[in-house]
Amino acid sequence: MLDADDKTALHTPEDGVAEPVPFRDEEGFINPDFVALVADTIQESDTARLQHLLEDFHESDLGDLLEALDPDFRPRLIELLGSAFDFTALTEVDEAIREEILEGLNPSTLAEGVRELDSDDAVTILESLGEEDKAEVLDQLPPMERIALQRSLDYPEESAGRRMQTELIAVPPFWTVGQTIDFMRDTADLPETFYEIFVIDPAGHLLGAVALDRLLRSKRPVTIQEIMDDEPDRVEATQNQEEVARLFERYNLVSAAVVDEANRLVGVMMVDDIVDVLEEEADADIKQLGGVKSDEELSDTVLYIQRSRFPWLFANMCTAFLSAGVIRFFEGSLERMVALAILMPIVASMGGNAGTQTMTVAVRALATRELGRTNAWRIIRREAAVGILNGLVFAVILGAVAALWFQSSQIGIVIGLALITVLIFAALGGILVPLTLNRLGVDPAVSSGPFVTSITDIVGFFAFLGIATLWFSL
Amino acid sequence: MLDADDKTALHTPEDGVAEPVPFRDEEGFINPDFVALVADTIQESDTARLQHLLEDFHESDLGDLLEALDPDFRPRLIELLGSAFDFTALTEVDEAIREEILEGLNPSTLAEGVRELDSDDAVTILESLGEEDKAEVLDQLPPMERIALQRSLDYPEESAGRRMQTELIAVPPFWTVGQTIDFMRDTADLPETFYEIFVIDPAGHLLGAVALDRLLRSKRPVTIQEIMDDEPDRVEATQNQEEVARLFERYNLVSAAVVDEANRLVGVMMVDDIVDVLEEEADADIKQLGGVKSDEELSDTVLYIQRSRFPWLFANMCTAFLSAGVIRFFEGSLERMVALAILMPIVASMGGNAGTQTMTVAVRALATRELGRTNAWRIIRREAAVGILNGLVFAVILGAVAALWFQSSQIGIVIGLALITVLIFAALGGILVPLTLNRLGVDPAVSSGPFVTSITDIVGFFAFLGIATLWFSL
Repeated sequence: MLDADDKTALHTPEDGVAEPVPFRDEEGFINPDFVALVADTIQESDTARLQHLLEDFHESDLGDLLEALDPDFRPRLIELLGSAFDFTALTEVDEAIREEILEGLNPSTLAEGVRELDSDDAVTILESLGEEDKAEVLDQLPPMERIALQRSLDYPEESAGRRMQTELIAVPPFWTVGQTIDFMRDTADLPETFYEIFVIDPAGHLLGAVALDRLLRSKRPVTIQEIMDDEPDRVEATQNQEEVARLFERYNLVSAAVVDEANRLVGVMMVDDIVDVLEEEADADIKQLGGVKSDEELSDTVLYIQRSRFPWLFANMCTAFLSAGVIRFFEGSLERMVALAILMPIVASMGGNAGTQTMTVAVRALATRELGRTNAWRIIRREAAVGILNGLVFAVILGAVAALWFQSSQIGIVIGLALITVLIFAALGGILVPLTLNRLGVDPAVSSGPFVTSITDIVGFFAFLGIATLWFSL
Repeated sequence: MLDADDKTALHTPEDGVAEPVPFRDEEGFINPDFVALVADTIQESDTARLQHLLEDFHESDLGDLLEALDPDFRPRLIELLGSAFDFTALTEVDEAIREEILEGLNPSTLAEGVRELDSDDAVTILESLGEEDKAEVLDQLPPMERIALQRSLDYPEESAGRRMQTELIAVPPFWTVGQTIDFMRDTADLPETFYEIFVIDPAGHLLGAVALDRLLRSKRPVTIQEIMDDEPDRVEATQNQEEVARLFERYNLVSAAVVDEANRLVGVMMVDDIVDVLEEEADADIKQLGGVKSDEELSDTVLYIQRSRFPWLFANMCTAFLSAGVIRFFEGSLERMVALAILMPIVASMGGNAGTQTMTVAVRALATRELGRTNAWRIIRREAAVGILNGLVFAVILGAVAALWFQSSQIGIVIGLALITVLIFAALGGILVPLTLNRLGVDPAVSSGPFVTSITDIVGFFAFLGIATLWFSL
């Protein structure tokens, strides 16, 4: 038997049976041999073998497997597995792949699959459908589920309302622990997992919450009112998911009530969704700092990527022309002393790298709220001091090497002076640009890069060529 | 009354009382006025007011407040609060700050504080102490706690064993649900929060786990054996925390058993610690891609940061000299045609940016295991195609602008050809360098940058100046 869990290092070897082709290697990378085996099985339409191969497969692994398969094989895998296919797997794949797969499925299969899902997963699937398909799938759902999903979809994109789960347990405050436990034992249709139960008044207003361990530890005659936390963690349905994720991270939350503007309980946010949000956010910061749009995915097409990376390169081209303009201003000096042309990119590149270092730290610290008004001034002074120090150190090193290379101590002095200048500007630009953009309400991760590099390039070329022109009276 | 929760947007306004100085603004940034108020209160040694100000303060907020305070005030805040100070707050501050604060406290206060903590938090504090202080604090703890902490500290740094909580509930499989619930009701010293109970044999081997909601839903006479998951999520104590975090993320876990090499239950990993690990890891990737060491913290001193950023700048200087060597090779051409010197930084900078785009995507996808042997070849081809396309597009734009600027269509053609060349190399370098480093077991986040920029700089200068030299027969 193939057991997905054995391949994940989550389980000890003795649980498993000898398995020649594991799905993942020890480092967690997907094994191409396993993917090829699945592809062969799909090719042969061998349903029994496929079901056997993917028995007990976790939905995340199933999602990763779908991504690794040839696009043509993806809908076929779902067809072959039939009701054994868990639609949750579709929430684990890239959006572009999800849309493509969903297009290949017929609405009744889709409605059947969506029906089995938790509301948050169902919303993720519905979000990827066109308006027409969405309406068709919703139409085929039982009224209660349709209304709940429709309500989630009415909240803004990337809000808590979209990510929340609407399956939850809410009881009145006068119930006893015993009543509550009996209710849970007798109700078949409970949420799949939950860590707290909520307490509401008849109008649905949130009064409190009781953690499951608290419930278990209390005696049966105790009322819920007595043990509930009457200031439970709560977020508003319209709140942005990033903001909610920061709260979960800061206060180590596992779940939180989601309420509407009138404090009525509408759903619950779970930490596993928050982990995904935090990862998405970190992904976005990393990509944006590297000049890539935050929504770029590995599955995107060449044309999409080319178009999405174009604006950054275009912005860079414009600033590069600006620096070229600075260089042209010193055309005469360059003609008289070609050594300047050879050395000037070194100055600019040192400035660019030092500026990027400071900017990276600043952008990330702003995102995690570690950098704010309380410490901005201290960090600005610190970065300036680091810039001066590194400027002095590299002025000596670079000056010496340049002096030796061109057999001219004067060249060494000029490049050293230019370097101190550019490293100070790099430090200040690296911290002030993100702070200013943040103050203006612009995401510093997206736009700091081009500004900082323009500053360091222009200052670098201007300082080096300018100082040289004065020094040598070129 | 000041209630920390009111300041976090987790609570609705009606819960709160008018409060002129909130701790955080709406965006989550710390309010300098509140920090100043606390500083004044410390200055006046007004214990009552301080305790009132920080009443119900969440430990995370307390940690952030400590970071925001002047270093001299930090130990004084802890002294003034006395037993009202929750040592968990110290696990929320930067390591450098934690070490500094701990140095200022005497071992008995420290032992008293550590004793109140969950084991994972206690380990974090102990890790920040010198060997001598650590032994002294451990000596003052009750034997059971000392042994548990000592065992955690014996695991390698950044392993699951260091991060795990040793407080857990484990029961034998033959107990009934009723017995288990009664046991929990009668035991005073239960873990603060837990989401599952574990099932072990008399030798402590892990047999299974029961989620709390499962326990609540089952009738009292049912045995644990019947409802337990006999393949519970488990990690090995020696496993690296990043690996464990990826598993939590991939399989949406909330807690997992930690076992030793003999499958004996030694602790439990909780999702809130995992959230921190994932954030640390994302932080590390972001910093490393920006040329900053992963352990740099906002609280580090100028000298520490200067030294820690030096190696990256030094590496960049060396590669910059390499590119300068390439330029010098074409010294003659530059002397005859100064336009080349003006335009060459544009070509190099376009290459550097395009290479960084591809590299950023590749490094992050490797870290999250999205990029592996199954799709490497497809991504390489895709990046090359994007490089060719953007190369062609920018060859036309840049060529046209350069031709107009220097009134020479030939310059336009030369820069266009150079640009196509460099953007193809940038794409290939951006993807092949991280893949190769990863294959060699080197962290691609740390070292890809300098390699990729060297490639794009050298290819950029060589292509542009080389093509120009041939074209104009300089």
